[in-house]
Amino acid sequence: MLDPALSHTVLSHAARSVVRRDPFAPLLESSRAEMMRRHVREGVATHSVPTAGAPQPLTVFDDGRTRINLGTNNYLGLAGDPQVVEAAVAALRQYGTSAAGSRILNGTTRLHLTLERELAEHHGTEDAVLTSAGVNANAAILSTICAPGDALLVDAHAHASLHAAAAASRGTVLRFTHNSAASLERRLARLDPEAGAVVVVDGVYSMSGEAAPLAAIAGLCRRFSARLVVDEAHGLGVLGENGRGAAEAAGVLDRVDAVTVAFSKSLASVGGAVLTSRAVADGIRASAMPYIFSAANAPAAVAAALAALRVLRREPERMQRLRDNGDLLRRVLTECGVPPVPGKGAVIAVRTGEDEATRSAWAAAHEAGVYTNAVRYPAVPRGQGVLRLSVMATHTEEQLRLAGELVAAAVRGVRTPEPANAMA
Amino acid sequence: MLDPALSHTVLSHAARSVVRRDPFAPLLESSRAEMMRRHVREGVATHSVPTAGAPQPLTVFDDGRTRINLGTNNYLGLAGDPQVVEAAVAALRQYGTSAAGSRILNGTTRLHLTLERELAEHHGTEDAVLTSAGVNANAAILSTICAPGDALLVDAHAHASLHAAAAASRGTVLRFTHNSAASLERRLARLDPEAGAVVVVDGVYSMSGEAAPLAAIAGLCRRFSARLVVDEAHGLGVLGENGRGAAEAAGVLDRVDAVTVAFSKSLASVGGAVLTSRAVADGIRASAMPYIFSAANAPAAVAAALAALRVLRREPERMQRLRDNGDLLRRVLTECGVPPVPGKGAVIAVRTGEDEATRSAWAAAHEAGVYTNAVRYPAVPRGQGVLRLSVMATHTEEQLRLAGELVAAAVRGVRTPEPANAMA
Repeated sequence: MLDPALSHTVLSHAARSVVRRDPFAPLLESSRAEMMRRHVREGVATHSVPTAGAPQPLTVFDDGRTRINLGTNNYLGLAGDPQVVEAAVAALRQYGTSAAGSRILNGTTRLHLTLERELAEHHGTEDAVLTSAGVNANAAILSTICAPGDALLVDAHAHASLHAAAAASRGTVLRFTHNSAASLERRLARLDPEAGAVVVVDGVYSMSGEAAPLAAIAGLCRRFSARLVVDEAHGLGVLGENGRGAAEAAGVLDRVDAVTVAFSKSLASVGGAVLTSRAVADGIRASAMPYIFSAANAPAAVAAALAALRVLRREPERMQRLRDNGDLLRRVLTECGVPPVPGKGAVIAVRTGEDEATRSAWAAAHEAGVYTNAVRYPAVPRGQGVLRLSVMATHTEEQLRLAGELVAAAVRGVRTPEPANAMA
Repeated sequence: MLDPALSHTVLSHAARSVVRRDPFAPLLESSRAEMMRRHVREGVATHSVPTAGAPQPLTVFDDGRTRINLGTNNYLGLAGDPQVVEAAVAALRQYGTSAAGSRILNGTTRLHLTLERELAEHHGTEDAVLTSAGVNANAAILSTICAPGDALLVDAHAHASLHAAAAASRGTVLRFTHNSAASLERRLARLDPEAGAVVVVDGVYSMSGEAAPLAAIAGLCRRFSARLVVDEAHGLGVLGENGRGAAEAAGVLDRVDAVTVAFSKSLASVGGAVLTSRAVADGIRASAMPYIFSAANAPAAVAAALAALRVLRREPERMQRLRDNGDLLRRVLTECGVPPVPGKGAVIAVRTGEDEATRSAWAAAHEAGVYTNAVRYPAVPRGQGVLRLSVMATHTEEQLRLAGELVAAAVRGVRTPEPANAMA
């Protein structure tokens, strides 16, 4: 029989257990979770209408309809290209579906080493290190540099994976105003001059299509002896004479200390890489959790990225078509009364404003036969929603003219009418 | 002409810049970086001898030799299986090499939804959320649960990605002694009873093959109202009647709040997933950086994992063969005088001790025709190196007998002789 005192303890412990906070509550109660469920119900997330084919200019959706696709990062149009697909098929037949091991154990094939070498050659760096995802390339470089006391100066709009990687690093994170060299300069000037400093930016901002002012930023890095890390996920294959990204376009490729890339854009695959010096690459191989403790990229994914990289280098006219297509769509939108956010390259943002307007414009375009990306809070500040449009090198002029007109009509349809005549 | 005072400032700034600490120095100076370069030179990392074929029982290496492969996580032998390879080929031809977009934008195909549904069905959870890498499944769940003040109690030997994800979370991280329910109990008993608590363990520890004492741990979680997260990367397809992992083997599947899996083991692919309740899954979809901001898994990788999962469910005899093969190799090693670390399942650790002994044993086995994993500091504490052997369901008895004898000879060859006769 239980000692009454012990019984009291047991009961009071049980009673206390009931009031313990549920550590899963942040997930369950999150207003974002409710928002995501609403997005799915509303069909803005493709969970409700998945794609049934490759992300081509004309993409088949699971509702049986074919739409003009202005909502994929398959910028060079290579994700459905037969030469890229067949390179992946050949890798599957030779190497199987997975090495099923880390790169440092049995996960390295000649394909992995070849992609690393050709990426480094293309960017003019000494070395490259593959990672299983693009976000993991950012984690790999930022989590393994900086001693405590060093500063990471991160653009406020940098990719979420850069902010997460910086926060997880040993350095002190300082944000500077998006694309503001003046803000960055003020931050750098106030640093302890003996502390290390790394400036971290996107080459191209994925939601707006803006390029970073890299000439000014690289100048500041030189003046303040700071290192420079640039995420070229959306610059590779899009900007620069050889498609090396925003740093090449700005003429400062040799002033960047580490470039990260993601294969899930121009390179038509999945995975990422850090392109940098031999010494830093070896340091990542020796230290970075996302390299050492993650499985090697699937051989088929490596083969696809390698085939796409070779097309990119062999056919620079693809990049020119991509940029021409971006200019064309910008022109059509402007002619149709919805001038997009100024920019160059593959990504075009059209302002829609409030969440409900963004959703309605997205749905109207989707219904009209154009797939776009609805970008709403929290991806952008509240009330600053956009339809994000991205072109491919393989869109035809006819497709882009039609899509531009349909998107413009969808956006005009949800805009609050301007006051009738401001001059009256 | 420069004002002399300004000129002085400029010069002194330039002088100060020279002494700024290099934030890349931690990478460049790291003793681990030097160690990695040595491992590559020594050939222990496969960077030096990459594989030239699928990770089959007999694997072709780039030096032209075929070795018995005891060093891959392709436990069920499906990474080179024609039905899995052809499922991936079909996905490539239908969906292309990449959706080139996040799951919440254009990255969802019917394949992604089907794999999520079938994984949840297999584990008996309400839902599953795919992530681009197994390590990112751990980041997805741990980075989005816990309010400040909640505690994450993590096994000291848990996978590096769990430790990194816990450190990046909002919770307070407490380590408990590896596989010690007593240590965990002491930690839980000292917590603020109103704080949330999450216990985080591997189901199977990948370097030693040990299973977690999940019956005891689940009991403590119930008693202390703690949630339980189990990484079943190395348990899925290996342990439990239906291959659901260590929690199924321990009879506590229904007491686990979230399971993470990696496709780069039994499921012969790349990627990961969190298997949990609908509400938590939706919370991850709404909140988790590695879900929202990472590209969708390649359709071919999803198709391979789905095909492998179906084989796993349809052919439970494969798992039985895998476990029998593990028992056989343990027996052979013991008969040959090198009894492995006690355990069950696919992973077998043979103690080698100091780094140099581990390297020599690895090299001798490699030369003799057996590929193994050399596990040294920092993957294990200094002086506690092992050769990590992993069996596949598809190894033959003859292959395992021969490999076991060759590995035993390699290990015996580097062991310091015992004092001649301790009884004398």
